[in-house]
Amino acid sequence: MSAVINCVAYAEGRRVGEVEIEEISEVIKRPDRFVWIGLHEPGEELLKQMQQQFGLHDLAVEDAHRAHQRPKIELYEDSLFIVLRTAQLNAAERHIEFGETHIFVGEHYLLSVRHGSSRSYRDVRSRCENTPRLLAKGSGFALYALMDSIVDQFFPVVDGLEQELQALEEKIFNDTFSRETTAEIYQLKRELLEVKRAVSPLIDICNRLVRFDLELIPEGTRPYFRDVYDHVVRINEMVDMLRELLTTALEANFSLISINQNDVTKRFAGWAAIIAVPTAIAGLYGMNFDWMPELRWQYGYPVVLLITIASCVVLYVHFKRSGWL
Amino acid sequence: MSAVINCVAYAEGRRVGEVEIEEISEVIKRPDRFVWIGLHEPGEELLKQMQQQFGLHDLAVEDAHRAHQRPKIELYEDSLFIVLRTAQLNAAERHIEFGETHIFVGEHYLLSVRHGSSRSYRDVRSRCENTPRLLAKGSGFALYALMDSIVDQFFPVVDGLEQELQALEEKIFNDTFSRETTAEIYQLKRELLEVKRAVSPLIDICNRLVRFDLELIPEGTRPYFRDVYDHVVRINEMVDMLRELLTTALEANFSLISINQNDVTKRFAGWAAIIAVPTAIAGLYGMNFDWMPELRWQYGYPVVLLITIASCVVLYVHFKRSGWL
Amino acid sequence: MSAVINCVAYAEGRRVGEVEIEEISEVIKRPDRFVWIGLHEPGEELLKQMQQQFGLHDLAVEDAHRAHQRPKIELYEDSLFIVLRTAQLNAAERHIEFGETHIFVGEHYLLSVRHGSSRSYRDVRSRCENTPRLLAKGSGFALYALMDSIVDQFFPVVDGLEQELQALEEKIFNDTFSRETTAEIYQLKRELLEVKRAVSPLIDICNRLVRFDLELIPEGTRPYFRDVYDHVVRINEMVDMLRELLTTALEANFSLISINQNDVTKRFAGWAAIIAVPTAIAGLYGMNFDWMPELRWQYGYPVVLLITIASCVVLYVHFKRSGWL
Amino acid sequence: MSAVINCVAYAEGRRVGEVEIEEISEVIKRPDRFVWIGLHEPGEELLKQMQQQFGLHDLAVEDAHRAHQRPKIELYEDSLFIVLRTAQLNAAERHIEFGETHIFVGEHYLLSVRHGSSRSYRDVRSRCENTPRLLAKGSGFALYALMDSIVDQFFPVVDGLEQELQALEEKIFNDTFSRETTAEIYQLKRELLEVKRAVSPLIDICNRLVRFDLELIPEGTRPYFRDVYDHVVRINEMVDMLRELLTTALEANFSLISINQNDVTKRFAGWAAIIAVPTAIAGLYGMNFDWMPELRWQYGYPVVLLITIASCVVLYVHFKRSGWL
Amino acid sequence: MSAVINCVAYAEGRRVGEVEIEEISEVIKRPDRFVWIGLHEPGEELLKQMQQQFGLHDLAVEDAHRAHQRPKIELYEDSLFIVLRTAQLNAAERHIEFGETHIFVGEHYLLSVRHGSSRSYRDVRSRCENTPRLLAKGSGFALYALMDSIVDQFFPVVDGLEQELQALEEKIFNDTFSRETTAEIYQLKRELLEVKRAVSPLIDICNRLVRFDLELIPEGTRPYFRDVYDHVVRINEMVDMLRELLTTALEANFSLISINQNDVTKRFAGWAAIIAVPTAIAGLYGMNFDWMPELRWQYGYPVVLLITIASCVVLYVHFKRSGWL
Repeated sequence: MSAVINCVAYAEGRRVGEVEIEEISEVIKRPDRFVWIGLHEPGEELLKQMQQQFGLHDLAVEDAHRAHQRPKIELYEDSLFIVLRTAQLNAAERHIEFGETHIFVGEHYLLSVRHGSSRSYRDVRSRCENTPRLLAKGSGFALYALMDSIVDQFFPVVDGLEQELQALEEKIFNDTFSRETTAEIYQLKRELLEVKRAVSPLIDICNRLVRFDLELIPEGTRPYFRDVYDHVVRINEMVDMLRELLTTALEANFSLISINQNDVTKRFAGWAAIIAVPTAIAGLYGMNFDWMPELRWQYGYPVVLLITIASCVVLYVHFKRSGWL
Repeated sequence: MSAVINCVAYAEGRRVGEVEIEEISEVIKRPDRFVWIGLHEPGEELLKQMQQQFGLHDLAVEDAHRAHQRPKIELYEDSLFIVLRTAQLNAAERHIEFGETHIFVGEHYLLSVRHGSSRSYRDVRSRCENTPRLLAKGSGFALYALMDSIVDQFFPVVDGLEQELQALEEKIFNDTFSRETTAEIYQLKRELLEVKRAVSPLIDICNRLVRFDLELIPEGTRPYFRDVYDHVVRINEMVDMLRELLTTALEANFSLISINQNDVTKRFAGWAAIIAVPTAIAGLYGMNFDWMPELRWQYGYPVVLLITIASCVVLYVHFKRSGWL
Repeated sequence: MSAVINCVAYAEGRRVGEVEIEEISEVIKRPDRFVWIGLHEPGEELLKQMQQQFGLHDLAVEDAHRAHQRPKIELYEDSLFIVLRTAQLNAAERHIEFGETHIFVGEHYLLSVRHGSSRSYRDVRSRCENTPRLLAKGSGFALYALMDSIVDQFFPVVDGLEQELQALEEKIFNDTFSRETTAEIYQLKRELLEVKRAVSPLIDICNRLVRFDLELIPEGTRPYFRDVYDHVVRINEMVDMLRELLTTALEANFSLISINQNDVTKRFAGWAAIIAVPTAIAGLYGMNFDWMPELRWQYGYPVVLLITIASCVVLYVHFKRSGWL
Repeated sequence: MSAVINCVAYAEGRRVGEVEIEEISEVIKRPDRFVWIGLHEPGEELLKQMQQQFGLHDLAVEDAHRAHQRPKIELYEDSLFIVLRTAQLNAAERHIEFGETHIFVGEHYLLSVRHGSSRSYRDVRSRCENTPRLLAKGSGFALYALMDSIVDQFFPVVDGLEQELQALEEKIFNDTFSRETTAEIYQLKRELLEVKRAVSPLIDICNRLVRFDLELIPEGTRPYFRDVYDHVVRINEMVDMLRELLTTALEANFSLISINQNDVTKRFAGWAAIIAVPTAIAGLYGMNFDWMPELRWQYGYPVVLLITIASCVVLYVHFKRSGWL
Repeated sequence: MSAVINCVAYAEGRRVGEVEIEEISEVIKRPDRFVWIGLHEPGEELLKQMQQQFGLHDLAVEDAHRAHQRPKIELYEDSLFIVLRTAQLNAAERHIEFGETHIFVGEHYLLSVRHGSSRSYRDVRSRCENTPRLLAKGSGFALYALMDSIVDQFFPVVDGLEQELQALEEKIFNDTFSRETTAEIYQLKRELLEVKRAVSPLIDICNRLVRFDLELIPEGTRPYFRDVYDHVVRINEMVDMLRELLTTALEANFSLISINQNDVTKRFAGWAAIIAVPTAIAGLYGMNFDWMPELRWQYGYPVVLLITIASCVVLYVHFKRSGWL
C-alpha cells in the first residue's frame, strides 16, 4: 500500500481529478480549487515534498512524522495543524486500538496523515462528494467531515466500555467475586482513562474552531463544528459517568467481599458451635472416673446420644433463624 | 395518536385558531401572530415540512429526528434550538424514565418535539392561554412556560431519590446489612448520575437565556428564565448533596459491616473459650494413667463437674462484661 | 402573633413613627424617608398589599410566599430581592433548625419576610436605632444589619458542629467504637452538608453586593458588606475543614475497627494455641494401646501434668511478649 | 510589657527617633516622614487613639481588637488593612501555635497589631534599618519586610510537619501498627488543614498586592511582593503534597493492617491444622472398640506416635513453604 | 570543574568566540551580538559579577544563589528570570534525582545557572550552533532550546514511573501481595507527586511565553514555545493518569487482600469441618458407657472407620465444589 492514499482536486464541491504531487502547488494557486490529500504513515521524503508544496511549518511536519502527540490544534499564519487521536474497538481481542490522524488545513488544501490503527477516510471523502453543495464550502467543510467521522468512532468504543461495565456489575452483584473481577475493574479503569485522554482535548479544539475568528472556517460551517463539539462533550460525559460508576462498583465489590467474609465467619462459627456439643459430651463420658453412675446405667448411652442430637438440632434451628447458617 | 398534537396561532396572547401545517409559513409572516406547535415523535416527512415552513437548520432537524442528544442550546441567525431531557418517576416499577424535548423558537413560532417518556404539554399551553397578559410577550414566554414545566418535573424525581436514600439509611443503620442494600446503593448512585447528566447542562442553558443578548428573549421575560435557573441550580445542589451523602452512606455501611465482623469474631472467640474448658478437663480425666488418684476418689466426678461448670460461668460473666458476648 | 411585626418610618436615621400599611406608598414618596417592615409568615392577602405598595415583581412575591428557595439575590429595575437561610442550634434536641428570610430592598424601603425557625429582628432594629449616624445611610445599611445578624447566627451553629466532631473524635480514639458512632458521623455529615448548602450561596450574594455597581448600596456601606462577606467565607472554610476532618475521622474509625479485629483474632489464636497443648497431650494418653509404658509408670500422671502446665506457661509468655495476648 | 512595642519615625529610610502617640498625626503630615508602630494585644483605649491619629475605619479597628479573623486584605480609600495568621512550631509540646497580626498601612505609616503566639518584629525592623536604601521606598517596603518575615515562619512549621509524616511513614512501614499511629495520622491531618487555612488566603492577598494598581505599593517594591507570593505558593504546594501523601499513608496503613490480619489468620490456620493431626489420631485410638488389633500390637504405640510426629512435620514444612507460617 | 562552563558570543547565529567575564557588558552593547553563558553552582562572588555585567535584580540573583525555588517566570523591565526543575532517573538506585536551572534572558544574553543533578547543556549549545539559521533568532531561541531539553528529560522519567507501575500491577494481580508492594505503591505515589510539583508550574510558564506580549520572544519563536507547552501538558497528563491508576491499584490491591482473607478463612473453615467429623465420632466411641453394643460388635471398628473416611470424602468433595477448598 503506497503512503499516498488519494490526492484529488475539487472545484465548487465537485471532483476535478487526481493531482500529481509535484503539481499541487500549481493547482492550489487557482482560487476556485482545493486539493484533498490522504497519506498513511508517510516517509520523511514524502512529508518534505508536502512541506514544500504547501509551505508547512517545520515543527508541525516533525510532529506529523514522529506521531505520539496529544490531540491539539495549532494556528499558523494561514493554516491550521490539528492532531486527533482515533480509537477502534478490537472486538476479537476485547481491547481498544488507538491511532492518530494529523490534519493540515489551508484555504486551498486539506492534508490528512494517518498513523496506527484507524480506518481509511475513503468513506468520508465519498460521502462529501455526494453532497457537492456542502463540499463547495471548501476545505473547512472537509475538515468537519473528517473530524465528525473520527469523533463518531468513539461512540461504539464507549458503548463497548459501558457493556463491559454492565458485565462487571453482573459479576459483582450476582456471581461470586474473584480476583479476575478486580483485575477487570482495573483494566476497564485504564481503558477509560486512555479514552478520556484521547477525547477530552477535543473539547477545547472544537471550541476554538467554533468560537475563534478563524478565516479558514467560514461562518456557514461553524454550526457543523458545534455539532462535533456536542458529540465530544457527550462522549466525555459518558466516560466520566462510567468512571464514577466504576469507582462505586469497586467500592460495592469491596463491601460485598466483606459481607461475604462475614457470612463465612458466621457459618463457620455456627457449625463450630454445633460440632462442639457432641465433642464436649463425648469428652465428659470419656472420663475414667470410677464412680460415674451414668456410665453404668443401661440406658445411659442412648439417652446421652439423644440429648446430644437434640442439642445439635436446637442449635441448628437457632443459628438458622438468626441468619448465621 | 397523530404526531401533530397541536398547532395553534396566537395574537396578543389570545388563541386565534388551529392552523394547517401548510399555512404556517403564511401565518407567521404577520407581525402580530405567533404559532405554537407540539409534535410527538414525528416522522422524517413531517419534520421536513416543518423545516420548510420555518426555515430550520439541517443539523438541528437531524438532531430532532434522531434524539439521544445531550441538553444544549444552539443559536442560529434568527432562531434558537434547545434540547432538554425530561424525567418522570415510574412509581410502580421504582425507576426513572427519561425522555427528550426539542424546542425550535423563532420570533413568530415555537415548535416542540417530544421523544420518549414525557407528559404532554397540553397543561402548559392551557395555563398560558389563561394568562394572555403574559403570553402576549410572545414565543419567548411560551418557551419559559415549557422549560419551567420540564424543570419542575425533576423535583418529584429528586424527592423520590431522597426517599430512597432515607430508606437505605434505615436499612443500613437499623437493620442488618445485606447484599441487596449494597446493590441498591449502587443503583441509586447510577440514577443520581443520570439525573445529574440531564440537569447540569440546564444551568448553562438558562444562564445563556438570562444573560446573553438574545433578541428572542425580551427584557421583560428574563426574570422568568432566572426563576427557571434558580430551580435548576436547586435541583443540582440537591443531587450533589444526595451523591455526597450516598458516598458517606456507602462508607458507613462498610464500617458497620466491619464492626459486625468484629462482633461475630468476638462472640465466636468467647464461646470457643467457654467450650474449651470442659473439653480440656474431660481430656485430662480421659487419660489412662494407672495412678490417677482423682479417678478413684468417690467424689471425683461430681467435683470435677462442678469445677467445670463454675469455670464456664466465670468465663461467661467475664466475656459478657467485656462485651465479647 | 400578627404577621406584621413592625412597620416603622425613618428619617435621617431616626425613627419617625409607625406607619399604617395603606399609607406606605405615600410615605416612601418623600425623598428623606425610608420604611422598614418586618413580616412573619404572611398570608397571600398581606403579600398582595405589599406588592401594590412597593411595586414588587410577581415572581419575587411568589417566592416570598412559597418559601423553600435557595439563597439568592435578584436585581430588579429599582429593587433587590434577597433570599437567605437562617439556622439555629436547638441545643435541647441537638439538631439544627433552618428558616428562611426574604428581603425586598428599595431606595426607600426594606421589607423582610421570615419563614420557619428564626429569631425576630427586633434586636437588629433597635441596635440600628441606637446608631442613627449609620442608619442615616438608608435602607442599604438596614440590609447590612439584617444580613450581618443572620450570618452571625451561623457561628454558634458551626461551633456546635465542631464540638460534636470533637465528641466523636474522643469516642473514636479513646472509647471503643460502636454502631452509634458510625451513625453519628453520618448524621454530622448530613448537618454539615445542610449548613454548607445554606451558607455557600451567600459568598456570591455578598460578593455582588460589594462589587457590583448597585445604586442601592452607597459607596460608604460597601465595607460593611465586605465584612459580612468575610464572615461568610470564614464560616464556609470552617464547614469545609470540618467536612474534611470528618472524612478522615471516618477512615480513622475504620482503621481502628480493623486494628481491633486484628487484636481480637490474635488473642483468640493465642488462647486457642495455649488450650491446644493440654488437649493434645490428654488425647495422647487417652489412647488405649496395651503397650504404653508411661501409663504404667507411677509418676506418669504428675509428670505429664507438669509438662502440660509448663508448656502452657511458656506459650503464654511467648504470646504476651509478641503482643498476641 | 506595654502594648506599644515601638513607635519610630523614619525619613528617607533612616530612623529619625521615637514618636509620642499624641504626636503621630503631626509627624505623618510631613511628606518625607513615615511612622512605623508595633502594638501587642492593645486595649480598646489605645486602638481608639490609633484610629484618631490615622483616621482608620471602624470595622478594621473592630477586627484588630477582636482578632480571630481569617487572613484578608481590605482596601480603604487611602489605606490598606491586612490580616495575617502567624504560626510557630512549639517543639517542646510538638504542636503548632497560631497567632494573628493585623497591619494598617497608609502612605506615611505602618501600624502592626500582634495577637497570640508570634515573634516580635524587632528583628524585621532592625534588618530594615540596616538597608536604608530599601526602606527609603516607604511604608510599602516595611509592609513587605513584615509579610516576608511572617510567611518565612511557615517554612520551619511545614518542615516540622514533613518530619512528622516521615516519622509516621517509618512507624507504618517498619514497625507494627497501633491505635496511636492512626490517632497521630488524624492529628497531623488536622494540623495540615489548620496551616492550609492560615496560608492559602495569602495567595490572593499577595496576588492583589502585586497586580492591583495600588498607589501604596510603588512599582519598585512589586518584585518583593512577588517574592513573598512565590514563597506562599511553595508553602501551599508543600502542604497539599503532605495532605495527599498523608491520605495515601492512611490507606497504606489500612492495607498493611489487612495484610497483617491475613498473616495472623494464616498462621492460626496453619498451626490449627498441625495440632489437628495428633488430636484426630489420639481420638481414633481412644475409641473403646473391643476389636481394634492395632491396640493389641506391641509396636502400636510407638508406630502411631511416629506417624503422628511425621505428619506434623510434613504439614509444618508444607505450610512454611506456602507462606502460611 | 570551574563554575563557568562556557561563555561565548554569537552574531547572526554563528559563534564569534569566547568572552571574558569582564568584557561581557561591552560585548552585549553591540546590537548584533548575544552572549550565552553557562554556570554550574556558582559562588556568591561570581553571581555578583554577573549581576553587574547584566544589571540583574537583587531578588533574582538571591534566588539563583540559594536555589530551592519552585519553577516560576518573572518579568523584569527588560529581562526574564526563569526557574526550572530538572529531573533524571538514576537507574542504578531506582530513584529520581532533581536539580534546578535558573535562566536569565535579556535581548543580548542568556545566562543559565545549574544546581544539583542535571546534565550539562553542552549538547543543547552544539545543536543550536548546528542550526545557525534558527539561532539567529537570538536569545529567545536559545531559551527555547534549553527549555525543550529540560522538559524532554522528563519523558524518560515518566516512562520509568510507568514501568514501575506496570511492575507493581504484575505483583498485585499475579503474585501474592506483601508489605513491600504496599510500601512501593506509597513510594511511587511520592515520586509522582514530586514530578508533578516540578512539571505543573511549567504549563503556566510556557503559556505566558507563548501568549504574553513579550518583546524578548519574537513572533517567529512562539511556535517553538507552543511545542514545549504541548510536551509539558503531555507529561502532566501522563503523571495525572499514573496517579489515578495508582489510586485504583491501591484499592484493587486492597480488594485482593480481602478476597485472599476470604479464601483463607474458607479453606480453614472447610478443613476444620472435615477434621471435626473423625474427632466427633472418635469422641463418641471413646465414651465409657457399659452398654454400648457397637463397641462389642466385631466389625464395629472397621465400619466406623469406613463411615468416618466416607464422611470426610463427602465433605471434601462438597467443599471443593462450592469453592471453599
